[in-house]
Amino acid sequence: MDLPAPSMAPRRFLSPLLLLLLVSLASASPSQPLIRLYSKPPFAGDRKVLRDDGLYCESWRLAVETNNAGSWAQVPPRCEQLIAAYMSSDRYASDSAIVANYSSEFARAVEIAGDGSDAWVFDIDETLLSNLPYYEAHGFGSEVFDENSFDGWVDLAEAPALPSSLSLYKELQQLGFTIFLLTGRSEPQRNVTEKNLLYAGYSDWKRLILRNATDQGNPATVYKSEKRSELESQGYTIHGSSGDQWSDLLGFAIAKRSFKLPNPMYYIS
Amino acid sequence: MDLPAPSMAPRRFLSPLLLLLLVSLASASPSQPLIRLYSKPPFAGDRKVLRDDGLYCESWRLAVETNNAGSWAQVPPRCEQLIAAYMSSDRYASDSAIVANYSSEFARAVEIAGDGSDAWVFDIDETLLSNLPYYEAHGFGSEVFDENSFDGWVDLAEAPALPSSLSLYKELQQLGFTIFLLTGRSEPQRNVTEKNLLYAGYSDWKRLILRNATDQGNPATVYKSEKRSELESQGYTIHGSSGDQWSDLLGFAIAKRSFKLPNPMYYIS
Repeated sequence: MDLPAPSMAPRRFLSPLLLLLLVSLASASPSQPLIRLYSKPPFAGDRKVLRDDGLYCESWRLAVETNNAGSWAQVPPRCEQLIAAYMSSDRYASDSAIVANYSSEFARAVEIAGDGSDAWVFDIDETLLSNLPYYEAHGFGSEVFDENSFDGWVDLAEAPALPSSLSLYKELQQLGFTIFLLTGRSEPQRNVTEKNLLYAGYSDWKRLILRNATDQGNPATVYKSEKRSELESQGYTIHGSSGDQWSDLLGFAIAKRSFKLPNPMYYIS
Repeated sequence: MDLPAPSMAPRRFLSPLLLLLLVSLASASPSQPLIRLYSKPPFAGDRKVLRDDGLYCESWRLAVETNNAGSWAQVPPRCEQLIAAYMSSDRYASDSAIVANYSSEFARAVEIAGDGSDAWVFDIDETLLSNLPYYEAHGFGSEVFDENSFDGWVDLAEAPALPSSLSLYKELQQLGFTIFLLTGRSEPQRNVTEKNLLYAGYSDWKRLILRNATDQGNPATVYKSEKRSELESQGYTIHGSSGDQWSDLLGFAIAKRSFKLPNPMYYIS
């Protein structure tokens, strides 16, 4: 797998300046197709299927989930409705639940040493906690990300659990895994994050790892790999890792099995 | 990303003996759900969504494409119809076309040295060539894989091109990429494979790499990583890699960008 290009933005991969540029480019060429179509397609199929919004947007979602899309800034305008519908549907719940099921199947086959060294790493946002109430009010990823506004939501500490992740979390604890939470949230958000996790039903994690001042310059892939690497050097075996971003899972010190939860609303490099 | 468990089977990951065992297990417990449902789900959503075949099978397909499913043997019986419909639909064409579009977008941004060192690696089956005519007649992945029968199809050399891959292939050549074909097919199939590629519209690849006798014991991930590593040590830069299996893309000596084409019909470790 490829790694996303390094970025200096700590939590979202676009600086406000670059976002502004993208927005102005987008408004300058409203009729521009979002992806280039082959000028001389040898088969008519390609052109047809990509002109159908329903087909295109389902395929775009798959491309995002498989990391084929690489780095992306916002939900394509033509896909806003489909993504809004998806995030509110049984489909999103089902896509999340099956990931938890495969995670559970794998976890139950792990031989637990019993000395606390068998670890599982969870991301938080869109993995343990769902920020759907926030994104519902902000276009499901179609609006430009507003860090201040989102941080206000984080401070409320009212994000609900992603149901299938809460089930998995509790099962992993019963199986004897040591749970680490590794998030792109920053150290000043520790208290509200702990409060929110408890509110949503999570408890008894071993350690909550947030970005401190020295982590702020690193892209998520590097920051999270470094933290996993530290856990390994402390004697933990990272069997599983769960995250909604490829940057939660790739890099180095990767888990034996990585589980990608769905998230077609935003991308973090 | 995790790597699939090593296997000694050269092209498909299950030995006939293990397949027999699985088949007998399946027939011994016909009412057994395919995935375990949580015995005490804290939220009713999980149970509901996984009991709906339509939801389950779409989610299963996503789990396969994201590698969350890990190693799997056959299309789940409850998903046979959905996968058959998918493979025959515009959706499969669209999912494939968008991968080619993202590949093309990436390729056009590569600075080509002009000395032939800029390489792209393609898998063949379900990547450049489509074996749909064969799988259409054999249950779209729901039947136990029959190597003799499939080899008979390969000998016909009549597999059509996957349209969006043919477009991409030609564009990459125009851009100046050196094309390598890296397939799990074996050396004795070289002549029919070349014949089939030419029949489907492909030409002017740099090298067609097939499994020779010493490669036969290796799982695909290892075999393909070793061959990519050889290309790198010969001075090639592997910018892109296209394949329908994660074992085409993961391991070591991985490309700068890897592109996963859809294939919900079979899994190769």
